[in-house]
Amino acid sequence: MAELGVVYRNIVRADRDVAAKLGTLGTATVHEAMGRVGLLKPYMRPIYPGARAAGSAVTVLLHPGDNWMLHVVAEQILPGDIVIAAITADCTDGYFGDLLATSFKARGAQGLVIDAGVRDVSVLAEMQFPVWSKAISAKGTVKATLGSVNIPVVCAGALVTPGDVVVADDDGVVVVPAALAQKTLEAAAAREANEGEKRAKLAAGVLGLDMYNMREPLQKAGLKYID
Amino acid sequence: MAELGVVYRNIVRADRDVAAKLGTLGTATVHEAMGRVGLLKPYMRPIYPGARAAGSAVTVLLHPGDNWMLHVVAEQILPGDIVIAAITADCTDGYFGDLLATSFKARGAQGLVIDAGVRDVSVLAEMQFPVWSKAISAKGTVKATLGSVNIPVVCAGALVTPGDVVVADDDGVVVVPAALAQKTLEAAAAREANEGEKRAKLAAGVLGLDMYNMREPLQKAGLKYID
Amino acid sequence: MAELGVVYRNIVRADRDVAAKLGTLGTATVHEAMGRVGLLKPYMRPIYPGARAAGSAVTVLLHPGDNWMLHVVAEQILPGDIVIAAITADCTDGYFGDLLATSFKARGAQGLVIDAGVRDVSVLAEMQFPVWSKAISAKGTVKATLGSVNIPVVCAGALVTPGDVVVADDDGVVVVPAALAQKTLEAAAAREANEGEKRAKLAAGVLGLDMYNMREPLQKAGLKYID
Amino acid sequence: MAELGVVYRNIVRADRDVAAKLGTLGTATVHEAMGRVGLLKPYMRPIYPGARAAGSAVTVLLHPGDNWMLHVVAEQILPGDIVIAAITADCTDGYFGDLLATSFKARGAQGLVIDAGVRDVSVLAEMQFPVWSKAISAKGTVKATLGSVNIPVVCAGALVTPGDVVVADDDGVVVVPAALAQKTLEAAAAREANEGEKRAKLAAGVLGLDMYNMREPLQKAGLKYID
Amino acid sequence: MAELGVVYRNIVRADRDVAAKLGTLGTATVHEAMGRVGLLKPYMRPIYPGARAAGSAVTVLLHPGDNWMLHVVAEQILPGDIVIAAITADCTDGYFGDLLATSFKARGAQGLVIDAGVRDVSVLAEMQFPVWSKAISAKGTVKATLGSVNIPVVCAGALVTPGDVVVADDDGVVVVPAALAQKTLEAAAAREANEGEKRAKLAAGVLGLDMYNMREPLQKAGLKYID
Amino acid sequence: MAELGVVYRNIVRADRDVAAKLGTLGTATVHEAMGRVGLLKPYMRPIYPGARAAGSAVTVLLHPGDNWMLHVVAEQILPGDIVIAAITADCTDGYFGDLLATSFKARGAQGLVIDAGVRDVSVLAEMQFPVWSKAISAKGTVKATLGSVNIPVVCAGALVTPGDVVVADDDGVVVVPAALAQKTLEAAAAREANEGEKRAKLAAGVLGLDMYNMREPLQKAGLKYID
Repeated sequence: MAELGVVYRNIVRADRDVAAKLGTLGTATVHEAMGRVGLLKPYMRPIYPGARAAGSAVTVLLHPGDNWMLHVVAEQILPGDIVIAAITADCTDGYFGDLLATSFKARGAQGLVIDAGVRDVSVLAEMQFPVWSKAISAKGTVKATLGSVNIPVVCAGALVTPGDVVVADDDGVVVVPAALAQKTLEAAAAREANEGEKRAKLAAGVLGLDMYNMREPLQKAGLKYID
Repeated sequence: MAELGVVYRNIVRADRDVAAKLGTLGTATVHEAMGRVGLLKPYMRPIYPGARAAGSAVTVLLHPGDNWMLHVVAEQILPGDIVIAAITADCTDGYFGDLLATSFKARGAQGLVIDAGVRDVSVLAEMQFPVWSKAISAKGTVKATLGSVNIPVVCAGALVTPGDVVVADDDGVVVVPAALAQKTLEAAAAREANEGEKRAKLAAGVLGLDMYNMREPLQKAGLKYID
Repeated sequence: MAELGVVYRNIVRADRDVAAKLGTLGTATVHEAMGRVGLLKPYMRPIYPGARAAGSAVTVLLHPGDNWMLHVVAEQILPGDIVIAAITADCTDGYFGDLLATSFKARGAQGLVIDAGVRDVSVLAEMQFPVWSKAISAKGTVKATLGSVNIPVVCAGALVTPGDVVVADDDGVVVVPAALAQKTLEAAAAREANEGEKRAKLAAGVLGLDMYNMREPLQKAGLKYID
Repeated sequence: MAELGVVYRNIVRADRDVAAKLGTLGTATVHEAMGRVGLLKPYMRPIYPGARAAGSAVTVLLHPGDNWMLHVVAEQILPGDIVIAAITADCTDGYFGDLLATSFKARGAQGLVIDAGVRDVSVLAEMQFPVWSKAISAKGTVKATLGSVNIPVVCAGALVTPGDVVVADDDGVVVVPAALAQKTLEAAAAREANEGEKRAKLAAGVLGLDMYNMREPLQKAGLKYID
Repeated sequence: MAELGVVYRNIVRADRDVAAKLGTLGTATVHEAMGRVGLLKPYMRPIYPGARAAGSAVTVLLHPGDNWMLHVVAEQILPGDIVIAAITADCTDGYFGDLLATSFKARGAQGLVIDAGVRDVSVLAEMQFPVWSKAISAKGTVKATLGSVNIPVVCAGALVTPGDVVVADDDGVVVVPAALAQKTLEAAAAREANEGEKRAKLAAGVLGLDMYNMREPLQKAGLKYID
Repeated sequence: MAELGVVYRNIVRADRDVAAKLGTLGTATVHEAMGRVGLLKPYMRPIYPGARAAGSAVTVLLHPGDNWMLHVVAEQILPGDIVIAAITADCTDGYFGDLLATSFKARGAQGLVIDAGVRDVSVLAEMQFPVWSKAISAKGTVKATLGSVNIPVVCAGALVTPGDVVVADDDGVVVVPAALAQKTLEAAAAREANEGEKRAKLAAGVLGLDMYNMREPLQKAGLKYID
């Protein structure tokens, strides 16, 4: 499935402005706008509350307990990118810490999404370098085996192709194929547009039952009220 | 086991004042006072530190990936209620976000306990609307299948009957049957009463071994000290 | 494997100054300096962000749902110690709360590492008494069965001998055998020494590929760049 | 929630013949006939392939690591009963082995469903005494704390009331409230009735798409075929 | 990421003979020959011991709790195919039972790999229809929402493209891209070729240390023998 | 904690006859006789039903994804030994297959206990070479990093010292320190001695309540019968 030992240098990145706008809308809205696909599994959590990032995916495939390719991928980062790191088998080791974060930040990375562990999380939080991971672990890694950079990878159950838009926040991580980014942005923005009005109505005590005209379909479905 | 497609409108709620007082005592004390039963499984966690709530249970049974009945239950909320949401099968989808929270809050809900996922957690934290869930996920849900409101439900391993007192804080969620609420309050308050004195002694260096007279029972049980 | 019903009163503690210095270096650096061994499983997490502790291990072996021996171990604590609590079977009950924390703190304990649950976590956070646990649970425990104090224990997958240095922070918990503490400190300090310089270079945009001279070994390993 | 220290001796058992017939139909069919409720979580597995049992529920609530009440419940077993054992907290200890199985069998028990561990599984398989459990473990238990017999319990996420019909096989365990047993049997038998005909058609190559008239609803739902 | 509501009818299948030969070699050998990629997560287990299958992948993407598309995919099966079923979110429901197995078998399917649950496992074992799944559950599913057939899917952490070779046995499930099938077969057969000779030597007491000439590299790596 | 890169050649093995007799008594009885300690976590399961082994522990510490040291440990096996393999971090890779099993068997090994995965399980079952593991996986491993042989290791939560007696069967794996083996054998045999008589009584319908004289202690503990 995966090519090993290759680095693709020229990838077509998603439009940076579209990615940023999708980031503002947030994962829940973007995921709905996508038709409820593209979400990484919910075990992927931000290492500090309030973490947010959006950008174009630069991917890396790593081996368990080996972070060599994180140094290789660093060189491929352009400002606005998010690094998506997949592992060939389950692993919770701490692949990434404050030195790599300093390097990634210097290259312009918006954040890291890694299906493994990270460490130095206090320092990463101080640096405000956002990371989504499945574990936090002091366990270090070796630098011995080749993986690949910028090939399609499966990260936390989702397929990520280099150049896809990645949106990540407190609710999780969602991937939008580059070709669908503009269309998804429009659908997401449309969803968002009338949320303010809805929120005001609900705050005033209007029920969703009425606002969304649910009473009739509920009755048709057979809902019974018992006093 | 569970009746589907029904909404019980008239439930007998626990005394609101008793519920509030139990809330002040906290889950650990209340759970002890209950005889160490009634606790939801510890995978149920608050979505932000410091979350606290206590109230009378309004229950809802939902299907995996379907939050339709959360709109139905909203109408049944009275000020002081806590919504307890159970699911017919394991699911981590994000059933509840900021719009429903706005509606629940407007109805006077004290919080939500849901054996599934929620989303918009940054906004919920800002709103200080407390939620205990087993997951956080951006994944949305559909509105297609009937469940029920105000039937007894099994939530995170505990049976919850509508009108039970629910106490939730950083240590978890405990359910007190309405009929036992007053008695549990008295037992919990009695436990709490002399905690201040104990704390002062322990802070002064007195050992629990002496304060609780444990040396003799430990010796009888056969404990040996080796120098 | 484990002796039950005994309390060893005289253990040889690690050098307090060495323990403190290892604590300053942090778990990730210490674990690397140890040759990547000695780490507890990453499910052990601090109960509040920023928790840090380092000290000499005082160990206790407990039974599921029974915290009697925590009162016994309290008497054996000397200033600078960290209590390491292992359980004879998997359990998530809340063995430890604010009263025991008050007692442990009064004895000079630096913190607690427990392969089970704790409760009163809001109060523990206010007290700034650091705890690493595998769960948070309001569920209380009984005081009925003898365990042991200051015998070697297996805690979260790691063997801990009384007197070992324990270092714990946001990244996890690492155990350093007393006999290796000084040597590990030297190795860890050496690792740390040139981190500042490295960080500055990376922040200035130098790549790890160049700073660590990785390009040649990567090429030898067969890495191919594709434009 | 749960009364501790009581044994209800007189429970109303489900009709034995109805239970047996439901057992013949199997869990999958019965669960469908119930409207897809009443199933214990799928982590409950038979200890040997081909295990099957059906009967009236006799319930017992146990504490972690304590099997005392299994001796108490043994006396309450009547021929045709299935024992349902719930635990007040998660535990994988081996509560039940060949001696208790000999006793249960002598009393006429059809099997055991326990939300914990069992042991002597080789012997139990030879005896053909069917057990559904969440674990297999050699770890023994003590006899120290009272639980209850024949109170409603939550077992593996399902509420079981004494006298309910329990059906268990290779696919899992389902609970049918006694009051619904006859009606469920009729619905289940109706489902089963035309399965033979369906199976023959499918074996002959007829597609479910045609047999169930799904082509039109699929088209209406928007399904597109691409050549 | 995933297109919903489409069925691709014309896919290019892997060579049937190559698939069969890969199946004879088994997952462990094929996975090694692939360079240790392409394996589904090890939670995917056969429903009975000795299950074996190999064929060309026909894929289907399903929603949680909804098996409608299994009827749609049945029509797309050609003799020699293996159905690979992925779900858009974690689910353990029993999507597949004896009726669908009868239909799949009549169409010539070699087996099913599903990242969810199945039921009627006793009957499936009698039929010798091999299934690899992550759960066994009596819980049925609805037929309400469209997914897709023959699009690339992520199943148990691996990307599967329609027409890939799938090899499954007691050790797990491995996917070989159609384009690599012939080359992988050659590499796998070469691995296998001298296994008989190796086995004979090892059975005669020759050590792997000598047979594989490991003593020198072990010494170079610093291995020390202590008497 | 763990010394890396060393092989201890001279270990003191437990008495082979004692080990064999403990094996006949089985893990449940031995674990009770030990005072309920020494059991590996119950996730360790035999790869085929009916697997049984008992012998003297030869230990090996391995790195994730690296089985090099299994070849080193093979040379240290004497007839009657059981190999106990621990890993420095969680890993489910298939470290061991039919070739290594052939070699281990030729050396006289009674079985393997490994806190990771194994493969070729069909062949291992045919060979009747018993293995207890936490996973089954086709995923192979590399041969790159030194571990150690015959040092104390933590395997599945239990400390194992070379030369300890290991008893393993369908109920799990238990470790008996060599120094306690004879005494444990006597205690276990005593437990076993009157089991036949007990079984006969229970089979005849005598209740454990009466056979163990439990009625009085239950009454004293406050048990109430309600008609």
